[in-house]
Parts: sequence; C-alpha cells; structure tokens
Amino acid sequence: MSQESIMDNEVDIVIGALHSDLTSFMEEWRLVFSRYHLIIVKDPDLKEELKIPGGFNLDVYSKSDIDRTVGSSSGTLLFSGYSCRYFGYLMSRKKYIISVDDDCSPARDNNGDLVDIVAQHITNLSTPATPFFFNTLYDPYRKGADFVRGYPFSLRNGVPCTLSCGLWLNLADYDAPTQALKPELRNSRYVDAVLTVPARSMMPLSGINIGFDRELVGPALLPALMLAGEGKFRWETVEDIWCGMCVKVVSDHMGLGVKTGLPYVWRKERGDVVESLKKDWKGVKLMEEVVPFFQSLKLSPEAISAEDCVVEMAAAVKERLGPVDPVFGRAANAMVDWIKLWKVAGAQSSPSVA
Amino acid sequence: MSQESIMDNEVDIVIGALHSDLTSFMEEWRLVFSRYHLIIVKDPDLKEELKIPGGFNLDVYSKSDIDRTVGSSSGTLLFSGYSCRYFGYLMSRKKYIISVDDDCSPARDNNGDLVDIVAQHITNLSTPATPFFFNTLYDPYRKGADFVRGYPFSLRNGVPCTLSCGLWLNLADYDAPTQALKPELRNSRYVDAVLTVPARSMMPLSGINIGFDRELVGPALLPALMLAGEGKFRWETVEDIWCGMCVKVVSDHMGLGVKTGLPYVWRKERGDVVESLKKDWKGVKLMEEVVPFFQSLKLSPEAISAEDCVVEMAAAVKERLGPVDPVFGRAANAMVDWIKLWKVAGAQSSPSVA
Repeated sequence: MSQESIMDNEVDIVIGALHSDLTSFMEEWRLVFSRYHLIIVKDPDLKEELKIPGGFNLDVYSKSDIDRTVGSSSGTLLFSGYSCRYFGYLMSRKKYIISVDDDCSPARDNNGDLVDIVAQHITNLSTPATPFFFNTLYDPYRKGADFVRGYPFSLRNGVPCTLSCGLWLNLADYDAPTQALKPELRNSRYVDAVLTVPARSMMPLSGINIGFDRELVGPALLPALMLAGEGKFRWETVEDIWCGMCVKVVSDHMGLGVKTGLPYVWRKERGDVVESLKKDWKGVKLMEEVVPFFQSLKLSPEAISAEDCVVEMAAAVKERLGPVDPVFGRAANAMVDWIKLWKVAGAQSSPSVA
Repeated sequence: MSQESIMDNEVDIVIGALHSDLTSFMEEWRLVFSRYHLIIVKDPDLKEELKIPGGFNLDVYSKSDIDRTVGSSSGTLLFSGYSCRYFGYLMSRKKYIISVDDDCSPARDNNGDLVDIVAQHITNLSTPATPFFFNTLYDPYRKGADFVRGYPFSLRNGVPCTLSCGLWLNLADYDAPTQALKPELRNSRYVDAVLTVPARSMMPLSGINIGFDRELVGPALLPALMLAGEGKFRWETVEDIWCGMCVKVVSDHMGLGVKTGLPYVWRKERGDVVESLKKDWKGVKLMEEVVPFFQSLKLSPEAISAEDCVVEMAAAVKERLGPVDPVFGRAANAMVDWIKLWKVAGAQSSPSVA
C-alpha cells in the first residue's frame, strides 16, 4: 500500500493548543494541513480564546467538551498541558492520526524543499515495518532501496506499522539537564532515513511530531504518567515517553512494528530551561525504573487487542512500579480509566465529517 | 576515547586481493591507506603475480604462507576467494582491523568531500555503543548530537563497540535474485548517520567495508559458512553474513555493541549477476535457517571470551543446524579449527612492524 492510496479522509491531524494565538502556526502549515481534517484541543488551563485563521476543515474541543465526555468518573485522567491532545485522539474516528506540537514549523530537507510531514508519516505507516531483522540500508520499501543480501526472504513482507516517530531540527528534544548543560547544542543534521526499531528494543518516543494507526494502537497512546507540576515545556514531560513504550510493547506483542526517522520538523526556541531543571530531575529519575520495566514486560497470549494489552500493562505497572513511587500507581489507574473511556466515548461519538 | 587518541600503529588495513593488478585500487586509496600498515592477502586461487604500487607499508601473504601456517590439520578452513582476508585477520597483531573489498573506491559525502573510511571506522569503534536503548537521534557521541529526552542516564556511558559495519554507494549489496530482478537499482542515498544495532537484534553484515576490534572479537570473524562453488562475487557469498551474526551474538552475550552506517565506499560494477543466480539461491535458502538459529541462540555464563563463545556456538551449530544441511556441519568444524588456529598461530607469529 503506497502513500498515494491513502485517502485524505482517513487522516486526522490533532493539535494540542498550548497557545491561544495559532495564527502563525496554522499559516506556516497551511499548505500541508488544508487538505486534511484537523482536531484542535485547547489546553484546559488556557484562559484566552483561541485565534485560528479561516480556511481549514476543523473541530475544536475545549475544557467543557472534555468535562462532558470524561465526566467525574475518570478523575485520574488529566488533559492539561501537552496531554490535551489525547482528548483529540479519543475524538478521532480516522484510521491515521498525525500530531505535531504548536511550536514547530515545517522543516526543509537537504535539497531545501519543504517537508510534508503528513505525506511522510502516512508513507511510513502504510508501508510495512521490519522489526524482526535489521536492514542495514534502512527502510527497504523506500524508493531506490531494497533488502540487503542475507535478509531472509520469509521476512521481506514485513508487518503493519503502528507508529511513526518523526524528528526535529534546530531545538532537539533533550531533557532539561542536557539542554541546560549544553545551551548552544542545536540539531542541524538532517538524516535522510526511516528505519524500523527492532523488536524488543525500546526507544524514547517524543510526542512532538508523530503519526500512528489509531485503529491498531490508538488505545495505547494515553495520558498516564504525569508529574506533579509538569508544565508547558516538552523537556518537562514524560507522558509521551511512557506512551511510546506502551505502543512499543503492544506492537512487539502483536507482531507489529514501529518506525523512526523522517519526517523532520523545525522546533523554535522557547522556555527557560534553567527554571525547568528543578522539576525535570523527577522525570529523569523515573526513567531508571520505567525503561527496565518495559524492557522486561511480557504480555500474556490472552491479550489480543491494544485494549487488552493496556489493561494487562496497567496491572503490571501497579504491581511492579506502584511500590516505587505513587506516580506509577496513578499512571496505572489512569491506564485502566482510559481504556474504559476509549470503549465508551469511542463508541458514542459520531464520526467527524471530513 | 576519540579517534584522535588512537595511534596509527594500532590499526591494520587488511585487503583480500582477488585481482592481480591492485595499482588503480591502491592509488585511489593512497591518501587514506598510506598512513597505516597494510596486510594484503592474495586469493590462493589467483595465479598471476600481484602488482602493487610502491610507497606503502605492507606485508603480503600468499598461498605458501597460508599452507605453512594452517598446515594439513585444518583442512576445514578454506581461504579462497573473499575468504582469503581471514588469513590477514589471523596475522594481524593490531587492536583494530579495517577491511575493504578491492573493487571499492573512496566515496564522497553530501558536501562532496572524500570519505576517510579508516577515520570513521575508528571513531565508531573507539566511542561507546548503546545497544540497550535506542537513541532516536542516532549516535549520541557524534559531534552535535546527544541522548534524547527519556534516555536513562545509567545507560549513557554505553559499552565498547566491537564492530563497525560500513555501507556502499552505487552498487548496493543486494543478493543475486534482487540484483537480477532490478538490474537498474543503485544506491544513491548517502545517509549521514551511525547507529548501534540494538541488543538481541540480528543484522546482515556485509564484509565489503568493515572495521572491528580484533582484541575483543577477532576470533569471531572467521571463514566458516562457505557454499560449494562459491565464486568471486559478493552476491554469491554468505561467509560474511555468518560472521556478522557470530560477532553480534558474542557482542550481545558479552555486553558489547555493534554499529552500522557511516562510512560509505563507492562500489564499482562487475560480474554477471544472471550467471550467479543459480549458485546464489542456495545461500538465500540457508538464511531461512541461519537467522532464526542465531536469533534464538543463548550462550552459557561460562563463555567469557570470544574464543569460548565461538566454540560454544560451533557445538550448537553442529547440533541444531547440522542435520539440516551438510554445509552447516562443515561450518561447525571450521569454527572449532579456527579457534585452535587462532590460539596457536595468533601466539606464534611476531608482530608486524608498524
């Protein structure tokens, strides 16, 4: 299946609005976004009215929509800050979701051409992944590429791709300590490659620029691990890292694949990293527990859907990580509540008109 | 440890001479090769005298040297064709070996600059590998890069790198069926990245352009799996693929890492792929057995050196693959004989003068 065979109405672009004035953001992306249906979710902490330019096909959700849908039964689910976009994932009825932070601009490739992130994510998602053997020439399905000598023919059909992790130029996605220690460090290397993250290998998903197959793994992209006082800067968040490992475990368990690499976005400067340092160490410390946990997590053969997998993971989180820090107990509860909500809200809400 | 801290006399460049006239090959590489000691091993099947231009610091080995060293006791070890270079690995006393096929030229990077493959391989080998968690921004030790948010700090020291798998522009390393089906297919994408192949993930090593740490894993680069009638073209060989998986299993077992990516070489056209098709299918079929075997291979805690690991792997090959095809039984015997030879010849031979 090539990117061309994906209908535009199979795609939702989900934007979490952490800033009220989206004018320049939307104008910069107009060429790419205007072909697709958009879901904009306003950070419930944001008081000002959203400013959105005309000419887009979009639905906007705000605090009142969240409150009405989530209700009082799911107090564990927090949609503030960067997590507001998860509400958009819940509202979508499309097969594919593309999501990008509202402080990113379109990047240019090595030829100076503007990158169409939607086209690239959809190409990544609609061509097979190859998690069971590493192809040294990167994505074998890319034009001009193939499987290298020695690659077993029985593995060349690949498996469906669930998640496409895009990258960033300029301000890279370093944690606060790294950013504070190396304030001048910018990512200027455009690596022209897409590759499958091998089975059983964990990677840090950044929520900045992603695409995923909502039908296959939507339930695993969920607001679970949130730090107290987590703010409005990426270097403070851990929710996306947590999601990425959930999706990777689900994908490995179900024999599906995750890709990383292209497309790039251009990240702009903002925030005071030194101010964030205090809060971020908590997240950094948690990773020492989180990574070994997910690396060693084995799901049972009874878990045959993403929903099943998440519920089983939640039980393991509660049992193995719960005693380590209360934040993990809350994450486990949020995972269970999210699946309940996904089943109910997912079934009730009517499809958006593309 | 940076590339600059590696002394030139810690490096041997090993060339298997499959062609008698090395003049143009050596002249193309003079700028890179002339700083280092070279070991040239003449394919024992080659009748003509070698032509090698002056101005290099080198040792040449030919059939008589091989016969004298290997003797009659190791009839399982075959050093013909591409496998002649293994004799050079045996003769080397240096920490690092770089090896490149004699039909390759220096490549140019995206800026048009000539690639110094030795410098890049040594950089890859002398900076840590990170096999236990995937870094989405590729090699975190590269200038301008770092570990992305979410990467556990406890894993940021990395582990020693054992093997650096370089890549190829122009004629890519496809097997004969792929090359025959897509005769126009050329690799023109220069991907400016180095990455660690994650732990427990297997990859197809191509022997065309490699660097390795002889002290750490030298015994695992060995002439074991050779097809009857295996000729003088890369698309027919499987010995290098086999080696790569041996090194990967050893590295995983010993907590070390393997990298792939830069440096590139430029591969020239040669050979009649259609003529090779008949022979190659054997190798293609064997991969269906070889890959699952290595993927599921677990070594015992008693195996604490590369030599130990190879002996243990040989026993597993004999037991599990031996019944499948006689070629595997021969490979198992060759592995055992190689380790004997490595211990004896390795100890006796005096170091080359750098």
